Amino acid sequence: MPTQTQIGLMSHEELRSEHERQAAKYAQLKAEKLALDLTRGKPAPEQLDLSLALLSLPGDGDYRDGSGTDCRNYGGLTGLPELRAIFGELLNIPVANLIAGNNASLEIMHDAIVFSLLHGNPDSPRPWSQEPVVKFLCPAPGYDRHFAITESFGIEMIAIPMRDDGPDMAKVAELVAADPAIKGMWVVPTYSNPTGAVYSEDVARELASMPAAAPDFRVFWDNAYAVHPLVTECAPALDILGLAAAAGNPNRPLVFASTSKITFAGAGVSFFGGSDANLAWYQQHLGKKSIGPDKINQLRHLRFFKDADGVRAHMDKHREILAPKFALVLQILEDRLGASKIASWTEPKGGYFISLDVVDGTAKRVIALAKDAGIALTAAGSAFPYKQDPEDRNIRLAPSFPSIDELATAMDGVATCVLLAAAEQALTHS
Amino acid sequence: MPTQTQIGLMSHEELRSEHERQAAKYAQLKAEKLALDLTRGKPAPEQLDLSLALLSLPGDGDYRDGSGTDCRNYGGLTGLPELRAIFGELLNIPVANLIAGNNASLEIMHDAIVFSLLHGNPDSPRPWSQEPVVKFLCPAPGYDRHFAITESFGIEMIAIPMRDDGPDMAKVAELVAADPAIKGMWVVPTYSNPTGAVYSEDVARELASMPAAAPDFRVFWDNAYAVHPLVTECAPALDILGLAAAAGNPNRPLVFASTSKITFAGAGVSFFGGSDANLAWYQQHLGKKSIGPDKINQLRHLRFFKDADGVRAHMDKHREILAPKFALVLQILEDRLGASKIASWTEPKGGYFISLDVVDGTAKRVIALAKDAGIALTAAGSAFPYKQDPEDRNIRLAPSFPSIDELATAMDGVATCVLLAAAEQALTHS
Repeated sequence: MPTQTQIGLMSHEELRSEHERQAAKYAQLKAEKLALDLTRGKPAPEQLDLSLALLSLPGDGDYRDGSGTDCRNYGGLTGLPELRAIFGELLNIPVANLIAGNNASLEIMHDAIVFSLLHGNPDSPRPWSQEPVVKFLCPAPGYDRHFAITESFGIEMIAIPMRDDGPDMAKVAELVAADPAIKGMWVVPTYSNPTGAVYSEDVARELASMPAAAPDFRVFWDNAYAVHPLVTECAPALDILGLAAAAGNPNRPLVFASTSKITFAGAGVSFFGGSDANLAWYQQHLGKKSIGPDKINQLRHLRFFKDADGVRAHMDKHREILAPKFALVLQILEDRLGASKIASWTEPKGGYFISLDVVDGTAKRVIALAKDAGIALTAAGSAFPYKQDPEDRNIRLAPSFPSIDELATAMDGVATCVLLAAAEQALTHS
Repeated sequence: MPTQTQIGLMSHEELRSEHERQAAKYAQLKAEKLALDLTRGKPAPEQLDLSLALLSLPGDGDYRDGSGTDCRNYGGLTGLPELRAIFGELLNIPVANLIAGNNASLEIMHDAIVFSLLHGNPDSPRPWSQEPVVKFLCPAPGYDRHFAITESFGIEMIAIPMRDDGPDMAKVAELVAADPAIKGMWVVPTYSNPTGAVYSEDVARELASMPAAAPDFRVFWDNAYAVHPLVTECAPALDILGLAAAAGNPNRPLVFASTSKITFAGAGVSFFGGSDANLAWYQQHLGKKSIGPDKINQLRHLRFFKDADGVRAHMDKHREILAPKFALVLQILEDRLGASKIASWTEPKGGYFISLDVVDGTAKRVIALAKDAGIALTAAGSAFPYKQDPEDRNIRLAPSFPSIDELATAMDGVATCVLLAAAEQALTHS
């Protein structure tokens, strides 16, 4: 039996039998009539169970924060100071420059773009909607929901290749310096979605300091996985606000984070960090749509965590659940695809995803095969602007939600689909 | 001593002594060094106490709704069906046409306008931001936060006089039929802010059926006080969606409501009702900014209310707290200003406000006098578009938040300021 490394060297006959072998395996897979889902980075029920205490918090008669505010009533756009202090420590942001919101940081990102489109940001010569064209840099593979926001507003997205320590900075710097239509850039600095890349301090410093043709250029620094390591040592939160201020660009970074993957995914607290000018700007417009965030939910989280170490200890428990799942996926990828060299994948030290690259031109086919076998994978191209993966090779794997057993079954099935698609393609071209 | 009815008939000398009398009273008032606040329609602490049970709900291990959804996790843009059913019954909206959101219906109104500006609504020939001008009709006096939203986007606001049963419909119908730039209209149909007016079914029917020059004209039907009577019999929620559908304008009404003045003002649940097309449109854009509302908070409210009768019984308790405060304000107005005929005021059967009209041209002066005496009133003109009260006579009184004793003191002080300002003006013109 030929090893899979040899697919590229196989004769037509050998390819034909390799294809038959994989097709037979796939037929077995389909016969299992699976219904498994690897699409979204949803916490598993056992992870949500870690925060069950929230269901009875803040508890009888407990509705005032440390400053005496009645959290039940209207008011206070900035959120609870004590909770902001906890996450300020974790995100490396002064508490005065961090505000706490409702359950979705995605909403704050969306609003920051909406306010920029309709009003302009503090450094804008005019509202973005009055510009002939607005462009965003999109390190890719990246987060599909980021790209969906910019696409929905007709903002032109420019894909930038991702490296292990951040995006291709030579390309980023060149484009941002030259094109005043480039108003923003999506960044997931820690355990990036989906590659798991961690931005280096050098990359952060260059993002903060590089010349920008647009005076109102913004880095949308979505630190969604700031405290989400899969190893014991968490990557430190970079002081992006400090770096930007030091470089004379204090208003460049907009920082986002949330407890969505810390407590309850749908019922957490979001955070927004920025310079004084950016926070004043945001609150000026936020004040038109809200009389303040849900402060009781913020108090609930404050009581639950108590302090930053409380968050860290809590994240250790998430890691104990997640790390074995990621290890399992990596093991199956290695066992089934390691020898063949027809695929490569990231080995993230944190976050929620593994980025799998299959044979060029076969990602769509792999995803279709998996779907027919009852295994839902994120749609092809999802991690790219306009859902266009130029090489049709990237698949985002989300190991968090399924049980260990489901994950093993699903990943073994995915590996079969990867091999079958590779054999199909080689056979066609032989 | 002349009665106050006679101010208009007083001689200069009589006016001078009337002025001296009121000025002396005002000097006494200032000497009390009060710090009282009648500005905002905030629930009083005793009202918030009615919902203290929410602080420990949904309670240990309770995180699934009746359909089995794990409310802790991401997902579900429409919110909990069981909670929507309760408020559908109260708001007279089919559950399929009502969705539940986060803590602020103001946010949904804001977003409905943002989505219309940037994308257009289902009936728009183009996004509103691409129109040369967009106008909204603003029944006035009305809700300042409504007007703040439209003003912030440069939407031209046209004031429409308010009657006891809604706005001047002859004027509304004439304008809407003639001007395609009129894209929307603010409405608070039940116990209107600030007059307490209740829209009649005839007015609602005309709003739903009148011809509109703009195909994408929308009525922003903010039923914020739908279940907030100050009397035992609550005004029924009008079937605005049904009326509009029957008239062939199913997409015209956008309905808003919330529990902000039912449970916790800052930590409640909002609702959005509309035609199938409007809800699909809203969710299409909402899905870009949110992975779903805080379903745990919705479950918390579901457990607290249990059913629509639970809400009604709960509102009875609010009424028991609020009705005496409103009665007190009306009594003081009658006692101090009734005979003079220099002021008039509404006697609302529900809602959160009393609308006081003082002598034309003196509202600003009354508010300034009150402020100097330590009594904060809503800023002059607040209830009008662009904060411009054309007659400078309207003052919005918010009796809910202060205690009964504070309210008595504050209102007696306000009456003194009204009388002093009237005497000042009469003296100047005598």
